[in-house]
Amino acid sequence: MQVAIVTFDGFNELDSFIASALINRARGAGLRAYITTPTDTVTSMNGVTVQGQRPLEFIAEADAVLIGSGIRTRDVVADLGLLDALPLDPGRQLIGSQCSGALVLAKLGLLGSMPVSTDITSRPFVEECGVRVLDAPFHTEGSIATAGGCLASQYLAAWTISRTVGEAAALAAVDYVAPVGEKAETVRRVMSTIGAGAPALR
Amino acid sequence: MQVAIVTFDGFNELDSFIASALINRARGAGLRAYITTPTDTVTSMNGVTVQGQRPLEFIAEADAVLIGSGIRTRDVVADLGLLDALPLDPGRQLIGSQCSGALVLAKLGLLGSMPVSTDITSRPFVEECGVRVLDAPFHTEGSIATAGGCLASQYLAAWTISRTVGEAAALAAVDYVAPVGEKAETVRRVMSTIGAGAPALR
Repeated sequence: MQVAIVTFDGFNELDSFIASALINRARGAGLRAYITTPTDTVTSMNGVTVQGQRPLEFIAEADAVLIGSGIRTRDVVADLGLLDALPLDPGRQLIGSQCSGALVLAKLGLLGSMPVSTDITSRPFVEECGVRVLDAPFHTEGSIATAGGCLASQYLAAWTISRTVGEAAALAAVDYVAPVGEKAETVRRVMSTIGAGAPALR
Repeated sequence: MQVAIVTFDGFNELDSFIASALINRARGAGLRAYITTPTDTVTSMNGVTVQGQRPLEFIAEADAVLIGSGIRTRDVVADLGLLDALPLDPGRQLIGSQCSGALVLAKLGLLGSMPVSTDITSRPFVEECGVRVLDAPFHTEGSIATAGGCLASQYLAAWTISRTVGEAAALAAVDYVAPVGEKAETVRRVMSTIGAGAPALR
């Protein structure tokens, strides 16, 4: 199974790379994540230039699509051509957003009445779209999940692993990346957060 | 003040990018981090190619140097030319290692009798160098700090900010990146971990 980590110019490294690196820990279980970009290269908010691993067209064949965050998401959602190049299908795909990525889901009309998690900076722009914002790091309903606060990307990644290749693989990936000496408590926190966010699926 | 995030081919994205993104949150306090590479580009363990922001020569002018981790650190420490290109000076610089980066510090003879934090995979190789490995996510003595387990890179970054531009800037950076709804507990955990690791400095 394949995951597209959609990454725009001005992206936040924490959002795209915590998700991609953590998901790629589940490679042995049959899951792969790819940095997916609208141009051959994108440059982060801190000036790091990265070569995309997949073009946006890859979204059509991905089993899960995570929309990363960055300092130019408002330009992204104002670009109707770019939005059209994001043919997300919650009937067939898992869809996740990190921080300002929620704005993309809102503009694409994917949220319905679902409230979201997003970061403090993005919050007013998401609310302007008529979407309710929760004071929670992670919220999921059905095939859509949202995370808020850069380090909440670990929840989005664990949810993606759990929902594609299973809870055991998610647990193993989180255990591997957790700080030494804090593995049990990290696994407990992450798994309970993604579980608590998906009561309908338990 | 400037921080070199030394990043080799085969690097782990979590290690280099959590540190660089978190440290760059303290830009307003006068701190900047740069992905520092031995070649113009490096490719991560998951196939992401990144343009280096600074060459290894930048180490000589950096106030702090963090050695990232990856799947080829054993090749790095076997390459005496590459080791020679890392003129680390704990008398003048803060020096940190993430996971297998501890092996680089050991081979450079920087650790003396200091025990370290490192990850489970790197542990036997670090111990082979005669260095004691702690079951702790973070350990610092004097101007050297070591972290183990990918997500422990948040501790290394917070320590770097705290020791260069101050504890308030570190606290603000951690607060910003922490998951929404978990900010207070994240700040408490990170600040207590880097404080607990540096009793001599309090």
